[in-house]
Amino acid sequence: MTTLQATSSRLQVLNCAACGAPHTAFTLQRVSECCAQPLLAHYALHEPLSREQGIDTAENSMWRYHAVLPLLDEANRVSLGEGWTPLLPLHRLGARYGLADLLLKDEGQNPTGSFKARGLSMAISKAKELGVTGCIIPTAGNAGVAMAAYCARAGLRAVVVMPRHTPKAFKEECYWYGADVHLVDGLINDCAARVRELNADGALLDVSTLKEPYRLEGKKTMGYELAEQLNWTLPDVLLYPAGGGTGLIGIWKAFQEMKAMGWLPATAQLPRMVAVQAATCCPLVETLAGHQANCHSYVGQPTIANGLAVPRPLGEPLMLQVLQESQGTAISITDEQMLEGMRELARLEGLFVAPEGAAVWMAARELLQTGWLQPNERMVLLNTGSAQKYLDNVEGRY
Amino acid sequence: MTTLQATSSRLQVLNCAACGAPHTAFTLQRVSECCAQPLLAHYALHEPLSREQGIDTAENSMWRYHAVLPLLDEANRVSLGEGWTPLLPLHRLGARYGLADLLLKDEGQNPTGSFKARGLSMAISKAKELGVTGCIIPTAGNAGVAMAAYCARAGLRAVVVMPRHTPKAFKEECYWYGADVHLVDGLINDCAARVRELNADGALLDVSTLKEPYRLEGKKTMGYELAEQLNWTLPDVLLYPAGGGTGLIGIWKAFQEMKAMGWLPATAQLPRMVAVQAATCCPLVETLAGHQANCHSYVGQPTIANGLAVPRPLGEPLMLQVLQESQGTAISITDEQMLEGMRELARLEGLFVAPEGAAVWMAARELLQTGWLQPNERMVLLNTGSAQKYLDNVEGRY
Ligand SMILES: Cc1ncc(COP(=O)(O)O)c(C=O)c1O
Ligand SMILES: Cc1ncc(COP(=O)(O)O)c(C=O)c1O
Ligand SMILES: [Zn+2]
Ligand SMILES: [Zn+2]
Repeated sequence: MTTLQATSSRLQVLNCAACGAPHTAFTLQRVSECCAQPLLAHYALHEPLSREQGIDTAENSMWRYHAVLPLLDEANRVSLGEGWTPLLPLHRLGARYGLADLLLKDEGQNPTGSFKARGLSMAISKAKELGVTGCIIPTAGNAGVAMAAYCARAGLRAVVVMPRHTPKAFKEECYWYGADVHLVDGLINDCAARVRELNADGALLDVSTLKEPYRLEGKKTMGYELAEQLNWTLPDVLLYPAGGGTGLIGIWKAFQEMKAMGWLPATAQLPRMVAVQAATCCPLVETLAGHQANCHSYVGQPTIANGLAVPRPLGEPLMLQVLQESQGTAISITDEQMLEGMRELARLEGLFVAPEGAAVWMAARELLQTGWLQPNERMVLLNTGSAQKYLDNVEGRY
Repeated sequence: MTTLQATSSRLQVLNCAACGAPHTAFTLQRVSECCAQPLLAHYALHEPLSREQGIDTAENSMWRYHAVLPLLDEANRVSLGEGWTPLLPLHRLGARYGLADLLLKDEGQNPTGSFKARGLSMAISKAKELGVTGCIIPTAGNAGVAMAAYCARAGLRAVVVMPRHTPKAFKEECYWYGADVHLVDGLINDCAARVRELNADGALLDVSTLKEPYRLEGKKTMGYELAEQLNWTLPDVLLYPAGGGTGLIGIWKAFQEMKAMGWLPATAQLPRMVAVQAATCCPLVETLAGHQANCHSYVGQPTIANGLAVPRPLGEPLMLQVLQESQGTAISITDEQMLEGMRELARLEGLFVAPEGAAVWMAARELLQTGWLQPNERMVLLNTGSAQKYLDNVEGRY
């Protein structure tokens, strides 16, 4: 196994998310040995790191934050230019609903068309650094496409396992990148079972959500970017479409790191975080409402927002913690509502957003109605992907 | 008609591309009154403008160059975050062909998935500034989608006229943005004829390539970005897929402007510019080879690179001038070759490029074989779009 020394990265150690037990960050790790829970990367931030030192402003991607990212040798960076996506004001949509300060972060402009590019760029870079020769992933679609692309760019073997009902465009794109594609009847948890079979010999690195430590580190860059784009302030509320939850957890982790480094004042008010799910698959909403102790036996159904069809997310405890610490909430949206949201965003703002992104907007509308959100609050919608690959899921005109 | 005064923009006057006759830049203009030729924007650059003054480095889009862009009041900016796209080294592809310094600028990461976003963001911003209430366009696909998106964002009416054989994804996306879509049997020149019928009363602004002055100004930002990304040097060769030619002409215009301002040394060697066309529609190649005096009666056929099916580009003289001044050339590529290029870029570099972008890579391969290109030269491939919307044009596996 490769052993490496840190260079410009401040990466120090990996800690078990459940009990905190340290694990070395300099060999290949998966989940924690103690509790089989996610491992969280910890950085050496006692030596002060200013924003000026810590941000490589010439870098037009998420890698501008490489000092607080886990890659040790930049030569291993596998990048297609992911991140540093625009934060767009939505004036026309805001005006229609009387909202003073509505913003959308457009992750659809990432390579491969979704925010999954961030996590997979990081995971594949680390895989390369740690001597891995191939990766496997269970996916609702976007993560598989991203993994296939970054593996192609790195020269690693790629195996992608996705539900058979996934829109054709996801499958085709994986195939173009040279990945082996396996189709499974069921949802992403059924795909995970197939991954265990296919990878029984452990020859491939399983880059399932939170089963290796680094996709989270890529996703957290959304939090850094939000702060930098808002000139080191944060919105009142952040709405995010939660499946496996890496984005939600990662953004929250970024906020904590920025406070620890003084990039944000220690007293900074952090946003209330809203986890948006699909009506047909909303384990977090159910747990939060007390309808179940946890998601371990939750049964979900498909939705046009494929990325939200994650019935039993490993990161549920971490997501619940984010909602609690931030005084946030979870809410579910129907497929019908998502279609309405897609139409509104396309017609009023010229944004062709994935159903997941549309769900986030419809959640804002719901929360305004109940009074949980106030019209004068600064709210950020996280649009996680482009609608481009979802055409099979929406009624076409042509 | 609205009359405006310049603010931060250095815009001064519009000149006829054929005879140089000045036209005011402060009212709505189409082609020149003298010669019915394109109008080129001219900026007041006698007062020195340094790179430090001229570039808004906090702006993460093509609008970082707003001093040398034609928008007078930034309140009229209609933006979805277009431009400032990554310039990616292609190490694996380069290694396979013994190329030391192969780069690709990935315009597929723009809003709406192509470089057309740049031109249309600018044209629609100027349309808004000049009081236009609706726009119409003949298009091979990508420009129509971009126009529909920016019109939606600006609240303008949008009418898009495209060939019936255009892949479904282009039509659907226009429809989502609320545009009126008209389908025509034929190519883009047949669509232009339909535009003239539909807009006989002139109620809509016709934003056809080079029939209004500002799409070109949006496209030129690719030239500025290239120089900035290469730390104010330029590559030896730039390969570009030429349909109407705005990109080719615009990039060349940017190089001249940067020389005039001293952003590039007056003696800087400019790249040899290569116009890449499709074997079934290559008017420029034919004119350059002396097989015809000009493209006025050229007859083209469809290609999987829809954007290259432009049989009679208005900008032909300007394109020929760029090729001549730069000691460049024009070359055509078959649809078969484009498919091969798409496969190579996907499998070796994780890039799912439009057939137009693949054509550019295959052109590099051809020119290496003939010796026109040397393996040690720095070459930039301009990938103008994502393959996402072209799935109807390529054989699928699923
Ligand atoms: C577009 C989109 N949005 C949201 C999600 C959910 O993301 P996460 O698993 O990080 O919560 C996914 C996951 O597939 C996705 O593809
Ligand atoms: C992907 C793509 N590449 C290239 C072109 C040609 O661009 P231009 O007309 O600026 O030469 C087009 C035009 O439709 C296009 O869509
Ligand atoms: Zn533990
Ligand atoms: Zn003239």
